[in-house]
Amino acid sequence: MPYQLGRNFKFFSLNSNPELAKEIAEILGCKLGKSSVTRFSDGEIQINIEESVRGTEVYLVQSTSQSANEHIMELLIMIDALKRASAKTINVVIPYYGYARQDRKASSREPITAKLVANMLETAGATRIITLDLHAPQIQGFFDMPVDQLYGGTILADYFLNKGLEDAVVVAPDNGGLGRARKLASHLDVPLGFLDKRQPEPGAPEEIKVVGDIKGKNTIIIVDIIDTASTINLAARVLMEGGAKAVYACCTHPVLSGSSVQKIDEAPIAELVVTNTIEVPEEKRIPKLTVLSIAALLAEAIERVHNEKSVSPLFE
Amino acid sequence: MPYQLGRNFKFFSLNSNPELAKEIAEILGCKLGKSSVTRFSDGEIQINIEESVRGTEVYLVQSTSQSANEHIMELLIMIDALKRASAKTINVVIPYYGYARQDRKASSREPITAKLVANMLETAGATRIITLDLHAPQIQGFFDMPVDQLYGGTILADYFLNKGLEDAVVVAPDNGGLGRARKLASHLDVPLGFLDKRQPEPGAPEEIKVVGDIKGKNTIIIVDIIDTASTINLAARVLMEGGAKAVYACCTHPVLSGSSVQKIDEAPIAELVVTNTIEVPEEKRIPKLTVLSIAALLAEAIERVHNEKSVSPLFE
Amino acid sequence: MPYQLGRNFKFFSLNSNPELAKEIAEILGCKLGKSSVTRFSDGEIQINIEESVRGTEVYLVQSTSQSANEHIMELLIMIDALKRASAKTINVVIPYYGYARQDRKASSREPITAKLVANMLETAGATRIITLDLHAPQIQGFFDMPVDQLYGGTILADYFLNKGLEDAVVVAPDNGGLGRARKLASHLDVPLGFLDKRQPEPGAPEEIKVVGDIKGKNTIIIVDIIDTASTINLAARVLMEGGAKAVYACCTHPVLSGSSVQKIDEAPIAELVVTNTIEVPEEKRIPKLTVLSIAALLAEAIERVHNEKSVSPLFE
Amino acid sequence: MPYQLGRNFKFFSLNSNPELAKEIAEILGCKLGKSSVTRFSDGEIQINIEESVRGTEVYLVQSTSQSANEHIMELLIMIDALKRASAKTINVVIPYYGYARQDRKASSREPITAKLVANMLETAGATRIITLDLHAPQIQGFFDMPVDQLYGGTILADYFLNKGLEDAVVVAPDNGGLGRARKLASHLDVPLGFLDKRQPEPGAPEEIKVVGDIKGKNTIIIVDIIDTASTINLAARVLMEGGAKAVYACCTHPVLSGSSVQKIDEAPIAELVVTNTIEVPEEKRIPKLTVLSIAALLAEAIERVHNEKSVSPLFE
Amino acid sequence: MPYQLGRNFKFFSLNSNPELAKEIAEILGCKLGKSSVTRFSDGEIQINIEESVRGTEVYLVQSTSQSANEHIMELLIMIDALKRASAKTINVVIPYYGYARQDRKASSREPITAKLVANMLETAGATRIITLDLHAPQIQGFFDMPVDQLYGGTILADYFLNKGLEDAVVVAPDNGGLGRARKLASHLDVPLGFLDKRQPEPGAPEEIKVVGDIKGKNTIIIVDIIDTASTINLAARVLMEGGAKAVYACCTHPVLSGSSVQKIDEAPIAELVVTNTIEVPEEKRIPKLTVLSIAALLAEAIERVHNEKSVSPLFE
Amino acid sequence: MPYQLGRNFKFFSLNSNPELAKEIAEILGCKLGKSSVTRFSDGEIQINIEESVRGTEVYLVQSTSQSANEHIMELLIMIDALKRASAKTINVVIPYYGYARQDRKASSREPITAKLVANMLETAGATRIITLDLHAPQIQGFFDMPVDQLYGGTILADYFLNKGLEDAVVVAPDNGGLGRARKLASHLDVPLGFLDKRQPEPGAPEEIKVVGDIKGKNTIIIVDIIDTASTINLAARVLMEGGAKAVYACCTHPVLSGSSVQKIDEAPIAELVVTNTIEVPEEKRIPKLTVLSIAALLAEAIERVHNEKSVSPLFE
Repeated sequence: MPYQLGRNFKFFSLNSNPELAKEIAEILGCKLGKSSVTRFSDGEIQINIEESVRGTEVYLVQSTSQSANEHIMELLIMIDALKRASAKTINVVIPYYGYARQDRKASSREPITAKLVANMLETAGATRIITLDLHAPQIQGFFDMPVDQLYGGTILADYFLNKGLEDAVVVAPDNGGLGRARKLASHLDVPLGFLDKRQPEPGAPEEIKVVGDIKGKNTIIIVDIIDTASTINLAARVLMEGGAKAVYACCTHPVLSGSSVQKIDEAPIAELVVTNTIEVPEEKRIPKLTVLSIAALLAEAIERVHNEKSVSPLFE
Repeated sequence: MPYQLGRNFKFFSLNSNPELAKEIAEILGCKLGKSSVTRFSDGEIQINIEESVRGTEVYLVQSTSQSANEHIMELLIMIDALKRASAKTINVVIPYYGYARQDRKASSREPITAKLVANMLETAGATRIITLDLHAPQIQGFFDMPVDQLYGGTILADYFLNKGLEDAVVVAPDNGGLGRARKLASHLDVPLGFLDKRQPEPGAPEEIKVVGDIKGKNTIIIVDIIDTASTINLAARVLMEGGAKAVYACCTHPVLSGSSVQKIDEAPIAELVVTNTIEVPEEKRIPKLTVLSIAALLAEAIERVHNEKSVSPLFE
Repeated sequence: MPYQLGRNFKFFSLNSNPELAKEIAEILGCKLGKSSVTRFSDGEIQINIEESVRGTEVYLVQSTSQSANEHIMELLIMIDALKRASAKTINVVIPYYGYARQDRKASSREPITAKLVANMLETAGATRIITLDLHAPQIQGFFDMPVDQLYGGTILADYFLNKGLEDAVVVAPDNGGLGRARKLASHLDVPLGFLDKRQPEPGAPEEIKVVGDIKGKNTIIIVDIIDTASTINLAARVLMEGGAKAVYACCTHPVLSGSSVQKIDEAPIAELVVTNTIEVPEEKRIPKLTVLSIAALLAEAIERVHNEKSVSPLFE
Repeated sequence: MPYQLGRNFKFFSLNSNPELAKEIAEILGCKLGKSSVTRFSDGEIQINIEESVRGTEVYLVQSTSQSANEHIMELLIMIDALKRASAKTINVVIPYYGYARQDRKASSREPITAKLVANMLETAGATRIITLDLHAPQIQGFFDMPVDQLYGGTILADYFLNKGLEDAVVVAPDNGGLGRARKLASHLDVPLGFLDKRQPEPGAPEEIKVVGDIKGKNTIIIVDIIDTASTINLAARVLMEGGAKAVYACCTHPVLSGSSVQKIDEAPIAELVVTNTIEVPEEKRIPKLTVLSIAALLAEAIERVHNEKSVSPLFE
Repeated sequence: MPYQLGRNFKFFSLNSNPELAKEIAEILGCKLGKSSVTRFSDGEIQINIEESVRGTEVYLVQSTSQSANEHIMELLIMIDALKRASAKTINVVIPYYGYARQDRKASSREPITAKLVANMLETAGATRIITLDLHAPQIQGFFDMPVDQLYGGTILADYFLNKGLEDAVVVAPDNGGLGRARKLASHLDVPLGFLDKRQPEPGAPEEIKVVGDIKGKNTIIIVDIIDTASTINLAARVLMEGGAKAVYACCTHPVLSGSSVQKIDEAPIAELVVTNTIEVPEEKRIPKLTVLSIAALLAEAIERVHNEKSVSPLFE
Repeated sequence: MPYQLGRNFKFFSLNSNPELAKEIAEILGCKLGKSSVTRFSDGEIQINIEESVRGTEVYLVQSTSQSANEHIMELLIMIDALKRASAKTINVVIPYYGYARQDRKASSREPITAKLVANMLETAGATRIITLDLHAPQIQGFFDMPVDQLYGGTILADYFLNKGLEDAVVVAPDNGGLGRARKLASHLDVPLGFLDKRQPEPGAPEEIKVVGDIKGKNTIIIVDIIDTASTINLAARVLMEGGAKAVYACCTHPVLSGSSVQKIDEAPIAELVVTNTIEVPEEKRIPKLTVLSIAALLAEAIERVHNEKSVSPLFE
């Protein structure tokens, strides 16, 4: 049964992930707002909102995934257009919040791009953010408007629960992200390990040591983002060399840039499980890749926000 | 003789127009600040400022030309990095201010992207804008910080004066832009005409009428931006059919998108004169294209601003 | 039949154009909110809102016409009072937006007063602007709140259509404003001309040339604002000397300052058609002056905004 | 000896009080910046800054006295022009801060105009306020920029000290302003009294009672502002009826609106002492009016601020 | 009969005055929102809102009374939590607004803490203030959001009216606050006096003189705040020495810090009447102290604000 | 040799850590600015800046450590006073940034207090933050002003290097903070381990497992903050039970609240090494506690910032 949404609810999609938006709209039982985003001959974005949004509560879906700059500008321009067209609220649904890895000054004179993007969204006129598995939870604090951050890990965990792997162990592929691995291990009720990496001296090759017992085990690597895949590919090799029975990998956000998919295909990874916060194009859908949909989760969040029900059940 | 610039002057270029930045630096007798703008594997911009900017007055050159979105994001991220690195002032030199044609709501529910970009620059931390021949002078008012808008028309006018065309007439190629044409005509001391365009009824082909005497004359079309070139190509055809001796065209900002250059090559245009506010790549440099440099004008403006001298001589 | 407006709708007038406000209220079928704007002995404005506005959507009519400074301050003080009295929204209806001709730095060290006024309105607490025929459409971008700009030209055009002038030609009285003239010419389906003005050298008298065929024609001059009337008076003389049969003039905003009305009376202008965005006092209502009301247009806009219907039909 | 002021010091006057500005400039030994404030035919303000202010520290003198609205708009427009012309700091010297009596909501739905004006000054771009004897000291808190409030009472007190009145008593003319009267009484080392006013019931005439001993005494009434003069005229009559020997009155800010001067002339006031924070025109300069100059005080404040010396000696 | 409040009304209390909040809730007939404010081991505040506030209009009661810093931080953190939890409006009820005596720069380099706190509340996300008897009414202007200031004096006046004191006179205990005393005297229809304090020279003891007739009278001292009680204790002594029959004292805000209560107990004060804007703990409830409740007044204000009725009847 | 600091440099301390401030001043060779922070009788903070700060660059030292609320308010009020007293820049040195553990919404309806405090500092008027070892580096992005975050780990690492422990291993005491432990292990060139904690089911006791080889080793636990000490005490016990030779612990920020010091004293911890970002009072200075000073590091940072030299050498 479709959700009950009021007359003043409007739902728009931009260009980064139209399939996901369509899926959410179907679950919500609503139509996609009529609009077109085209390009002028010189590449400048032209936005055409083809129905009145005056006084409405607009929900707008856009991941700021590759090409991040194009998708961010699309989003900002759309927000500007909605604001000037008298939308009452502009709720921006960002399944994948890009530039999130530049969330602090890691070295001198670096930008904090994740904050810059947050400031841009506020200045343009967004009134709420709905997002999923931010690279760092502190990014919520980059905003002074409400941010509803959903937790995508349950979808991944449930998949592995259903799969019924025996003798499993969750492995964090590096020194960070142990918290995420701990959560998955608890959900699956299996042990935890991690790969300790260090560089003995500048210029020397990195040394990697498996910490924890993985011999003969089905190992599951979890990260939030897979971009070049070098981290998980390396981890898979080290784990197999260390005697693992098999290596599974999973993440929420499949950035999968460059030749990452080809490398994953060649790596000793049995299966890679991701969600569709970022659209995975047909040519990257190798057999060992499983894509789970987060549309139902986002749809429920949108319905709860719109009908002013508590969203907290979806946070954890 | 190079200009005198203080110890706390720093000059940086981004990626849209490095040739122009280099030329300006040479005229100013200063070095280009060390920085690199690279891409992560997924296309996110990575900026590395490789020298201290603490307490300095930074001048940063970037046209927001094609690819506008990439160049705008580059600029915003660089400004964020400079601000967090304690630059004292961030003076943004934008020879070509893109998205300027979206400077008003021409129809319902349109964005005003030129204002959005202005807001983004203010929020990111820019403290001054130096620019040239804005599409509409009102765009200055989109900013609450000082904007020094230089006038590039003199460079074009001087070129035609030196060329010594006889029996010349300046023609505005459509109903707008008559002011710009009037200015050039006065500078050259020649008559003025324009092309009157109208659509008798919706769907019907546009009718064009030459207003003014162009028979046997060397006509000079002037616009601020040439993008698809359809306006000037059409104008050139109409003028030649109307008995013009030859058609010259000029503009400040050579956007020259898509196949515009090829079409200009085929059009009855004797010469197209532009400036280098936008970098014209080698493959577009057809024989009938003349590119004049605005580096000296920008260099003088930067020197005057930095040394707190009046910039007004460069406004007109 | 009066419009349907909710319980939380309130409509107030200030002092620049009470007649127009009354007319709008009648069309809307609503009462004017009770308030008084008086002066302290030293001329400071004293505002007294005599009914509760808590939680209401207030529409407030004020042209920032002569005396612009007094009317602007009145407006700002009223907005401040409404904001502090807990009005839910403050929708400012500005039929004539004054100071609009200072919309860019035309020469060095000029203010951009149209932007300053926009900033003042935002800071005071306005939440929406409804206006008509801005001097430059870019002024919409001076605001970051929604601006609904109505188009008054249709009222003027319809008047001339009904009048049934034969052999008419529309003439732009100078190099700017050709777009406005083109629009009227298309509406009337008549030809277009313009007056080309130039100054051969500094200090020399301006030369004016009629461009287009006006011999024996009924010429119609159109501008957006008539202030001193020197532009249209000069144009009328040049056109009559050039052989025009008669000269009609029209504009949206009749500023008509100083002795302009007397000069129009003496000029070879057959009829001057204006709207009532600015109140034309009795003593200026010379026989050749026709005043058309824009009350119905504004009333419809207010009703559509308040009832969250699309306003776009009124934009063009 | 003139003060030492750096190369980057500029001093401008607007139209409310040019005599005072000239006097300050003479004391400072500096020239008045070249600028003109004229009016367009319709009364809109046109400002022309005729010398470069780029990088300078500008001091700008304007009382927001009658006509307050015109003078406020003049000031805001000048600040906008200075900001856009790249002044480094904009220090606004407001000898009389008008609209100060609207500094709180005295009854429902009133504006707080003194705060509105403060917000306007901040938004326009002022960076510091120098002022004198604010109607309420809390108005300093209406600004988030530095406000240097000078104390003008010493000038009035010294005048009476020098005058050598015998048997003097200071009287506050109503329930407020007792603090101001206390300060003057202490400075002169004389007793203090006040007039107690009450309205027995709504509609009934006010009853006034002298509290304190004034029989046979030289009474001195002090207020901060004299506007209609009804307060001091009434006080003078009550005091004379109560047996006072003579009544003197003084204030910092001589608003003197309407027919106040004529009424003061007719009232039993021996002498009225004011300062020139507001220009007193020739026709109001009746024999019993003494105008003291605060130019030296303001000049010293400007010099101290500009040379970054402590201003605190001038606060009390 | 309890008030009618909508589904989206929520009422929360913080820790400064839970008794008052409970009383208000009872009058309103609503439940207190579930939340807890606890401390981490190091004293940092931990706030837990235990029910959804999404889309609700929240009313939050907190006096910023002793310990002011703790209570202010509690309030700011709660506002931040409510904002991020998507409350629709955050209406802050501050019965006693602390730090109000630092409302101006009384001497050089002082903060204006009352403005700082106002800025903090705005930045944190408050959308309205409801308060009572601000130390200076100008503090309303420290906010740019609506401030509803209630008048608590009527409760005190009614108490004395009911008490039926004969031969009463109201006395302002120092040079300020005469307005407040005048209001009470009018309400009771009795005469007015004040204590004139002066310091003949720096370092010398203050001289106090009773101005007005108090011999054999029941004197009533009124102030807004009683903190150390030294002002009223001194006044009581001077009045008794001056022949008063008895001294009553009253105030809205019983700060009663340090040993003030003991001193009041010892002073010749017959009765001290206060309200419960600040919670008076059991140990300070000496027999001569009468505490009147302002809960009904605040409850009515909240109901009127929430139901968008005029609050003006409660202002005076 | 003391550092060279210009005439316009001023250095102030507040009350959280005066010893550290004194030490920094000595290293810098400057005097502490004269100011006093006292309390009114009711606990409100009273700040008195006793020397002019007009035009100066002020550096202000305050840890927002226990009592965090008092120290934050002290800091905000001081910033307000400095801003209003015309300080040119206000550089806030916060050795320990409190409330940092509330840097994200860990569960529904939580505040993000670390962002709230950042917003408060910006609103009050701070122009730069200098801090050390933020709990999460993303907190830098909570500010839009420059933040110079120094790295205190080197001081701890050098201490252990000099100590010359044999057979050492660094242990992260829980799933987070592995990055910090990795850095120390690399600096000391020793192995790394961690304690894996999990709760098998809700309500059940937590299970802890040592991951890595610690038998017979000198283990070094590192965290950023020690508050209740329960984490390190538990870790110490588990490590000793697991066969460690000895347990050392270290942290940058010794919050040491409640009875933590007593518990550390009782725990099997050989030595606890901390810095003085938070003042450790005499009664907590148990023999096994070693306090290292970060004064030299902060002094160098201040000097570099003030003299506009690069601070990057101190970031890592």
